[in-house]
Amino acid sequence: MDNEPGVLARVVGLFSGRGYNIESLTVSEVDGKRHTSRISLVTSGTPLVIEQIKGLLDRLVPVHKVHDLTVGPAHVEREMALVKIVNKGENRVECLRVAESFRARTLDSTLNSFIFEVTGSSEKVSAFVELMSSLGDVEIARTGVCGITRGNSVDLSD
Amino acid sequence: MDNEPGVLARVVGLFSGRGYNIESLTVSEVDGKRHTSRISLVTSGTPLVIEQIKGLLDRLVPVHKVHDLTVGPAHVEREMALVKIVNKGENRVECLRVAESFRARTLDSTLNSFIFEVTGSSEKVSAFVELMSSLGDVEIARTGVCGITRGNSVDLSD
Repeated sequence: MDNEPGVLARVVGLFSGRGYNIESLTVSEVDGKRHTSRISLVTSGTPLVIEQIKGLLDRLVPVHKVHDLTVGPAHVEREMALVKIVNKGENRVECLRVAESFRARTLDSTLNSFIFEVTGSSEKVSAFVELMSSLGDVEIARTGVCGITRGNSVDLSD
Repeated sequence: MDNEPGVLARVVGLFSGRGYNIESLTVSEVDGKRHTSRISLVTSGTPLVIEQIKGLLDRLVPVHKVHDLTVGPAHVEREMALVKIVNKGENRVECLRVAESFRARTLDSTLNSFIFEVTGSSEKVSAFVELMSSLGDVEIARTGVCGITRGNSVDLSD
């Protein structure tokens, strides 16, 4: 979509106005020169509801293209979470072991805390969060899911 | 905030209604048991405007806490991008070299394409996207920024 004021509000309002849920949403500019942004949005509903949502989004003027990643070619979907954990003693060692097995990166470390960055499917991120929660007090910031089709087709949203 | 229908629309509407820009936004549930979600939002404005925004957000009923990460203790902010690049020959080798230097992970690979996952500051992610764009046709999905304060204070948003 064009990155113009109010377009995010219209997309989100389209869902809330009809009672459709938004499980997660990420939005960011993807082409500075053409001022285009991309929203990745996770929702759920019957096939009819999904078709309705797609139709409504397609009709929003600043929207160039609507793509349901769950139909057609396979896709990659990933999420990132920042996980701060406060603890001490043996739990600290266990923390680092869990982080290593999830290929998490350590962004910050104090005598009794860590901040980890983990990426993966939502399921993997949730599993990491759950394990960490059992090892101390946690604070979580998750980005929500973004995705892209596998293979060599490039969607330039023209 | 409580993860209830319409709250995202109200947060986003609060910005668009007053002409405040949203540079990026991520939203995701962070505590399944208590049904709380966390929005990380990047905006800009004079100190007065930022104070106004904070005040307005604070008054939204399902919002538990508003935190300006740019004031007070230092914080970590990171973003994730999925970058698909289609190309061949020498550019392919160069792609892998750039990916390695950015510690990007390869999520998909065909004879003439890659999907990379890269995380870092927005500046780092933008630098990666720019370099890749010079090496072939690209498709980008970025999550937008999420952040967390450094150190051992845990914000449980009670």
